[in-house]
Amino acid sequence: MKKKITLKQIARELDVSISTVSKSLRNSLEIGEETRLKVQAFAKFYHYKPNNIALSLKNRKTKTIGVIIPEIVHYFFSTVINGIEHVANENGYSVIICLSDDSFDKEVLNMELLANGSIDGFIMSLSKETQQKKDFHHISEVINQGMPVVMFDRVTNDIQCDKVINNDELASYEAVQSLIDKGRKKIALVTTVDYVSVGKLRTDGYTKALLDNNIPFDEKLIIKIENIDNFGMKIDKLLEDRAIDAVFAVNELFAVTIIKTANKMGLKVPEDLGVIAFTDGIISKYSTPTITTISQRGMEMGKVAAKILIDRLESEEEELEEEEVEVYKTVVIETRLIERESTN
Amino acid sequence: MKKKITLKQIARELDVSISTVSKSLRNSLEIGEETRLKVQAFAKFYHYKPNNIALSLKNRKTKTIGVIIPEIVHYFFSTVINGIEHVANENGYSVIICLSDDSFDKEVLNMELLANGSIDGFIMSLSKETQQKKDFHHISEVINQGMPVVMFDRVTNDIQCDKVINNDELASYEAVQSLIDKGRKKIALVTTVDYVSVGKLRTDGYTKALLDNNIPFDEKLIIKIENIDNFGMKIDKLLEDRAIDAVFAVNELFAVTIIKTANKMGLKVPEDLGVIAFTDGIISKYSTPTITTISQRGMEMGKVAAKILIDRLESEEEELEEEEVEVYKTVVIETRLIERESTN
Repeated sequence: MKKKITLKQIARELDVSISTVSKSLRNSLEIGEETRLKVQAFAKFYHYKPNNIALSLKNRKTKTIGVIIPEIVHYFFSTVINGIEHVANENGYSVIICLSDDSFDKEVLNMELLANGSIDGFIMSLSKETQQKKDFHHISEVINQGMPVVMFDRVTNDIQCDKVINNDELASYEAVQSLIDKGRKKIALVTTVDYVSVGKLRTDGYTKALLDNNIPFDEKLIIKIENIDNFGMKIDKLLEDRAIDAVFAVNELFAVTIIKTANKMGLKVPEDLGVIAFTDGIISKYSTPTITTISQRGMEMGKVAAKILIDRLESEEEELEEEEVEVYKTVVIETRLIERESTN
Repeated sequence: MKKKITLKQIARELDVSISTVSKSLRNSLEIGEETRLKVQAFAKFYHYKPNNIALSLKNRKTKTIGVIIPEIVHYFFSTVINGIEHVANENGYSVIICLSDDSFDKEVLNMELLANGSIDGFIMSLSKETQQKKDFHHISEVINQGMPVVMFDRVTNDIQCDKVINNDELASYEAVQSLIDKGRKKIALVTTVDYVSVGKLRTDGYTKALLDNNIPFDEKLIIKIENIDNFGMKIDKLLEDRAIDAVFAVNELFAVTIIKTANKMGLKVPEDLGVIAFTDGIISKYSTPTITTISQRGMEMGKVAAKILIDRLESEEEELEEEEVEVYKTVVIETRLIERESTN
């Protein structure tokens, strides 16, 4: 690599202060146009790359948002990122994304990496392993150092920060209620294991809807799937015995797999089996039949999370000297039932 | 934000050189264990965050790879990223992702942002707009400054750097040949507009396969789609007139839309219409019928791209003083035809 010129060298060459160079490079209107353009031209000529952390320590902003998500092959997280990008760009912020791959260690490493002067604040959704371990020290450390964090979807009550969530319990309740309204009575819940916070809440909503409609709760109708590859026997048995007339699946991959299994057994969807999935993804739109889903409105979630973070970053600037107690908010994004062919 | 302690302050407090602090924080074995642990403990206690660019200028590494992709709601790019993450993590590298959103400006901004001391090198796929504009100055600038770039999938001949690609022309040829082998003769190509390099290559492969099999080329059978939402009439007309017996679609979204349209018109897939899609995604696996695809093997592509970049970064270190002519390589990842229900 070639040697790079430093802020200090530019200042010496042009006989101005380092602060002037730094402000000029950020195009601050505090500096007269002539000086600003001269510094910028000089810096460009020598391929000067401003030093992020130095700028951020001086000005407390990199105008960059760090996003940490558990996985990337996941339509919901993709739409959240699109929402974040949208609001960030509108407000002159860049977005940097890291994946935790549902690993606690990677989540910790990524936070260290980004907190390292590259960004002004975090938007994140917890990894499965972090939720299992209940170890959130890496997040509190970042917050204690004064860097704001906004959590979305997979959040924890153990950390005080801004949060954007769905009401997963209510959304599930409404989905199950909609099946009951259509005359379904033997409704299976196909869900994940409980350590992911949202899985638990969705189960609660399911149970409550049955209870409120005087439908006896039957533990055998709750199928917990750790991994899509060992989906197998339990659901096959229920379908074979005609023991169920509807399925509420916590994701669309479960839903489409059930529909395919049902079809093979000669069951028709929606006639013999109504199917609703949580999270509206690309499969639901294009499967045959198309699948009724609860949209988490990821795009909206991302937009709101970015708005909250940016508001906090910009108000922080104004009140830099004040010592106030932080008041955090939790915004609930209302889900939406999108009726398609798999229910009738 | 709280005031952060600097490298300089740690050095002063512990009465060691800045270089010793810097090396200790990177856990360099050049520094004796006692000093190293003392510096690390002190830094941790004062929440010291090492300054990336200072470290990287001194040591020429951040052990971080920057990835720029055109879009995130895209199964292929997600799998490439998984491949990159896999090899990066194995080699102790972190990965930071930015989205160009298929915009030239965003691609330029993201490169500036990341080249700014946060990363050691880039893995990128060009945005549509960049390919349209044919303006690659931001990439040559980065390369001229000594930062290696590996391009994948959407690449350009105008930039000399390492590249990882599919043989899009050959893959299309083989797909069309497989339809011909199954007795199909009236094969439509449903493709994107030509400014995306891969779209052009896939069309060439289609044309060549017809030619080699003495099937007359008919321009009316090439449908160019700018946007999935105005899919419409042209393909409807072809299906209605029974003018085609097979479709080769350059992506699975096109393929599944055609299958649905055909079904509505009473055409059966694969009996009346064979369908193959380029790029193996989640829709192809779960649609009814499942769709025969050409897998681009994104995971493999990502792994190879990361391997090339890391090899280059680590060999650079060894040969830091040598002035050699760079020899770049282009690795071709072989595609794979995955036969499913939509062809027979």
